[in-house]
Amino acid sequence: MKQRIAVLGSTGSIGKNTLAVVREHPEQFEVIGLAAGSNVQEMVRQIREFSPRIVSMASPEAAEQVQREAGPGVRVVCGEEGVSEVATHPEASIVVSAIVGSRGLRPTLAAIRAGKTIALANKETLVMAGSIVMREAEKAGISILPVDSEHSAIFQCLNGERTAEVRRLILTASGGAFRDLPREALGSVTREQALTHPNWSMGAKVTIDSATMMNKGLEVIEARWLFNMPYDRIDVVIHPESIIHSMVEFRDGAVMAQLGTPDMRVPIQYALSYPERLPLTARPLDLIALGALHFRPADFNRYPCLKMAYEAGRAGGTMPAVLNAANEVAVERFLAGEIPFLAIEEVIERVLSMHGCISDPTLEAIEEADRWAREQAKACPVNPSAV
Amino acid sequence: MKQRIAVLGSTGSIGKNTLAVVREHPEQFEVIGLAAGSNVQEMVRQIREFSPRIVSMASPEAAEQVQREAGPGVRVVCGEEGVSEVATHPEASIVVSAIVGSRGLRPTLAAIRAGKTIALANKETLVMAGSIVMREAEKAGISILPVDSEHSAIFQCLNGERTAEVRRLILTASGGAFRDLPREALGSVTREQALTHPNWSMGAKVTIDSATMMNKGLEVIEARWLFNMPYDRIDVVIHPESIIHSMVEFRDGAVMAQLGTPDMRVPIQYALSYPERLPLTARPLDLIALGALHFRPADFNRYPCLKMAYEAGRAGGTMPAVLNAANEVAVERFLAGEIPFLAIEEVIERVLSMHGCISDPTLEAIEEADRWAREQAKACPVNPSAV
Repeated sequence: MKQRIAVLGSTGSIGKNTLAVVREHPEQFEVIGLAAGSNVQEMVRQIREFSPRIVSMASPEAAEQVQREAGPGVRVVCGEEGVSEVATHPEASIVVSAIVGSRGLRPTLAAIRAGKTIALANKETLVMAGSIVMREAEKAGISILPVDSEHSAIFQCLNGERTAEVRRLILTASGGAFRDLPREALGSVTREQALTHPNWSMGAKVTIDSATMMNKGLEVIEARWLFNMPYDRIDVVIHPESIIHSMVEFRDGAVMAQLGTPDMRVPIQYALSYPERLPLTARPLDLIALGALHFRPADFNRYPCLKMAYEAGRAGGTMPAVLNAANEVAVERFLAGEIPFLAIEEVIERVLSMHGCISDPTLEAIEEADRWAREQAKACPVNPSAV
Repeated sequence: MKQRIAVLGSTGSIGKNTLAVVREHPEQFEVIGLAAGSNVQEMVRQIREFSPRIVSMASPEAAEQVQREAGPGVRVVCGEEGVSEVATHPEASIVVSAIVGSRGLRPTLAAIRAGKTIALANKETLVMAGSIVMREAEKAGISILPVDSEHSAIFQCLNGERTAEVRRLILTASGGAFRDLPREALGSVTREQALTHPNWSMGAKVTIDSATMMNKGLEVIEARWLFNMPYDRIDVVIHPESIIHSMVEFRDGAVMAQLGTPDMRVPIQYALSYPERLPLTARPLDLIALGALHFRPADFNRYPCLKMAYEAGRAGGTMPAVLNAANEVAVERFLAGEIPFLAIEEVIERVLSMHGCISDPTLEAIEEADRWAREQAKACPVNPSAV
């Protein structure tokens, strides 16, 4: 039976790779719905190739334009309700949650409540509302399958294993664009430098998050929920080659690792075909050509964003949502040329220090904290000494 | 319920490590029987600590001495029949087959026929008679669990996976004592140099086999049978640190690997506790302290023994048994100071070239080929130019 897929965020990096996987296996996968922001041309191309039943765009204008160009064969909706309609479409069996940022949370929850299997690329869903999301997933009896290469690696390492026998999870981090620069040199780095990821081709937000290591911090929080693992049993190690995608250490001292040439199609396809592995014409791993794999400590002093993420994660409640929202705004401000690179962490730190954390919050309280943190982060003045 | 263990080769390196695992988990494991060669003192010590029901020694003299020193509480037997009695003891549920060399084959087959689970350290069982042994194991409905760190790693990587989705097995090799020497320098290496393994502390035979890479060749043949994998889907890569114990590449490009500080107790315990992982106070893997893992090609020109093993494996029939027997004798002759290091491969090559291979042989034909190869290898003159 075909896996019937809805892709939330289909014109982004994960979305396009998801459709590349579908393209390789037309006999296995079928696209039911697509949701995107404002990229009309790409969406029209995707509709022509994959013939979804339903499509959603962010604005009514974009939706109208897509409908006009794609013709009447597809239903085109828009806005938050539109995304949710795609996410809960009765014909979809699995929803790829790949909208970047906190906007991915609501439609993912809607899909969970509608009983869909989730292929989760949107980190914010678990970072902001891990406790609520995992509870809803359990209630609905659905699986959340990771799409992030790190979490997919851990998920693969846990294949056939018992969680009770895990000693710790070891997330690998590339170290991002500035991994070879000392902290002193970070004051003057440019937007263009920060956008050059050494190993992965990803969206702008995630690439900046790699450079600050906030990306890894968010992944630590995500791993905490996805694998039900306390923070003191989740470690991060810098592995510049991004070949070992992550590892699991067991109580007998054995460490299982998943490796491969960086290619997002591998974890995406694994989530879509799990528990099966379908063939994929990816560039095979050539360890001899690589010659060596390297490892360095992920130093909290060098990467304060990683430290803040552990702290916010341990604080729990609304704190991780505030961390995430402040980071999103700070990265936007950096990308807009408004603040320098090191001010990203400064903004986040200030917003976190102002937040009165609410334990065991409702979804509304989380979203309120998210809004509050965004306002604070937008208005937050930047210390000129950080520049 | 306790796992009731018989250890064949209990005073050797694997045997002692097996008993170290039992010592850590007295509530999980119980020693039923022990078999050894001539090390009376060690056996008496083991009897006092583990109170087996039955013990076998190679010679009647050794058996007598053990019986005298250990007292009447244990039944002491001897010879080939003695080992088989230990291997088939009705109270044993699992037999650790750790006798080095071709003498391990018969008792392992006896244990299989008696319905015991096999924890297999003795490579020769599968190298000499893989086809017969796997057929008998299937007939008896028993599992053969690998104890070699490489095969255990592959076995762990296959946990929860489907064999049909495997693209290839990748065995890692330390490269042995002479991995950093060019081939030209091997003419004059000494016995003591060859006995210094960079990563593992093992018996003399296995350590020399590591230096010639015949060890890896035998493991390739073993992997062929253990995992039912054709030779063109088994690769070898040199990995000097011996941290990645082996890998499996799947058809989606994902590679699973098992890593750890070299410690034979890990794979031994895994075989004994499978599918569970028990705690083990092994030195944890510290990738940051290691800094890097390296990989180099396993060059057939540099390591002709590896090439001969693939060729003998592909030829099948009695050829792998001849390879193994010629190697055993050649290594003995080297350890006795009778031939130089490079003459090991020369002896093996000559004996292989003289052998008229028998396809689909009986156990008797295999043992006859083994005897023939030993005679040839003993008598084989060595080219002085290899010295």
